Amino acid sequence: MKPTVAIIGVGLIGGSLGQALRRTKKYRVIGIGRSARRLYDARRLGAIDQAATDLSAAATADIIVIASPVDTIVPTFKKLLPHLKPGTIVTDVGSVKGQVLADIARLKRPRSIRFVGGHPLAGSHKTGVKASNFRLFEGSTVVLVPTPHAPLQALKSLWQAVGARVIVMSAAEHDRAVALISHLPHVLAHALVHALAGRRDRRQLIPLLAGSFRDMTRVVSSDPAQWAQILRANAREVSHSLQLYRRELTRMEKMLTRRTLAVHLSKSQTFRGPLFHGV
Amino acid sequence: MKPTVAIIGVGLIGGSLGQALRRTKKYRVIGIGRSARRLYDARRLGAIDQAATDLSAAATADIIVIASPVDTIVPTFKKLLPHLKPGTIVTDVGSVKGQVLADIARLKRPRSIRFVGGHPLAGSHKTGVKASNFRLFEGSTVVLVPTPHAPLQALKSLWQAVGARVIVMSAAEHDRAVALISHLPHVLAHALVHALAGRRDRRQLIPLLAGSFRDMTRVVSSDPAQWAQILRANAREVSHSLQLYRRELTRMEKMLTRRTLAVHLSKSQTFRGPLFHGV
Repeated sequence: MKPTVAIIGVGLIGGSLGQALRRTKKYRVIGIGRSARRLYDARRLGAIDQAATDLSAAATADIIVIASPVDTIVPTFKKLLPHLKPGTIVTDVGSVKGQVLADIARLKRPRSIRFVGGHPLAGSHKTGVKASNFRLFEGSTVVLVPTPHAPLQALKSLWQAVGARVIVMSAAEHDRAVALISHLPHVLAHALVHALAGRRDRRQLIPLLAGSFRDMTRVVSSDPAQWAQILRANAREVSHSLQLYRRELTRMEKMLTRRTLAVHLSKSQTFRGPLFHGV
Repeated sequence: MKPTVAIIGVGLIGGSLGQALRRTKKYRVIGIGRSARRLYDARRLGAIDQAATDLSAAATADIIVIASPVDTIVPTFKKLLPHLKPGTIVTDVGSVKGQVLADIARLKRPRSIRFVGGHPLAGSHKTGVKASNFRLFEGSTVVLVPTPHAPLQALKSLWQAVGARVIVMSAAEHDRAVALISHLPHVLAHALVHALAGRRDRRQLIPLLAGSFRDMTRVVSSDPAQWAQILRANAREVSHSLQLYRRELTRMEKMLTRRTLAVHLSKSQTFRGPLFHGV
């Protein structure tokens, strides 16, 4: 029999995962959400086999993916507990792992219910199931964060089935890494927009906006409420990355009038080149 | 008779301008460059009617566009002077205007040769005539910086003919504006790459790189030598923008653990939305 996956929160990530899993024909997908309207969309888009607005529907699931915003992961897990059968594996897709896993470790729960932290490094500044797409995880990376006694294999297989590469790391390593490469860019982009918005002569500047400003601030379109949760949950590591980043800015500022600047710019270009194949 | 435009430096900008001007059928275009090979490419791509490797070919031109890197604009203009006929209008496409116009004001030259500063706010991280494209200026903005006794109309018509909107501003206004909205983003992007490249655990971080980092650092692919020239030529204003930007970072860092963060992120999103029509 096919394993049953319950996805709680069928938005961009949950919906894309549901679509991709159903296409493999190896999983059955139950979508659980508060909005019947959104579940209807999810079903129409082929993201789920079955819809439910009550967490008790997760009772039959072998794997549960909590795909709701960071602040809701632990409360959702807590509410789920009474409904789950022994051996159920629960995971999440949150962008911060330390705080979530610490809170979960503190919860009283049956030893037979296992939680494994998860974070698919895929997404879009768009949100909602209508933006979901079955290829979202193809070629992407998913981080799994193990916890004591929790088996990883079922989740490895699940993410690999939808085309992702799985990396296992600790919550601390994960949070430090994403602070620099994902959370910091969001802070930088918002600060750049605020720097412009705060200028008295902004009306004069707007007609001059071109590609560099657009690309650098694209992530500002991401959901503000969700991103505030993420940045708050990883505040310490984000602050640390900001310190590191400020040092780089100071270093570059000193070079602005020096011949070494071209070499410095070449170095970053050379380092970045292979990371994105020149895109 | 059609006005003749000489384009000195037929790369991305010069080549795109040549292609676009020729398509209007209202201009004749002479391409002047040091490399016969690149001029051959320019001609094959329809960017120029005639090619020359010597500046004397500009003698018959009514309008001359110096489309070479910032540091070469003034030396090129100086070498051009002996060849030009009275009434010739010379312009450039450099990203910094104050220093170039100050240097030109100091040059001895016949009053009948007029220089007007120009800066098309269009481009790409790609360079060279092979990346040129006749639609590059469609819907873009071109800044013209007037100088005493120099008529603007011929250049307004030229840029409007290729689909650009012309804005007239002073060199100081221009340099202050582009420092924030174009030069600062380049500094920020390079600093972000260096922040990653400088981490000892960078090999572990690279598999986690996703869209936000890619978008924020795309401009790092721009030509380092040209950008070092631009940043150096506008160093004072770029420093000033960096100060402003650092204040925004500090403000955001203080908010990382506060409820006000979501409001702050919403404000930048609301401000940015209409600027790029949600892209």
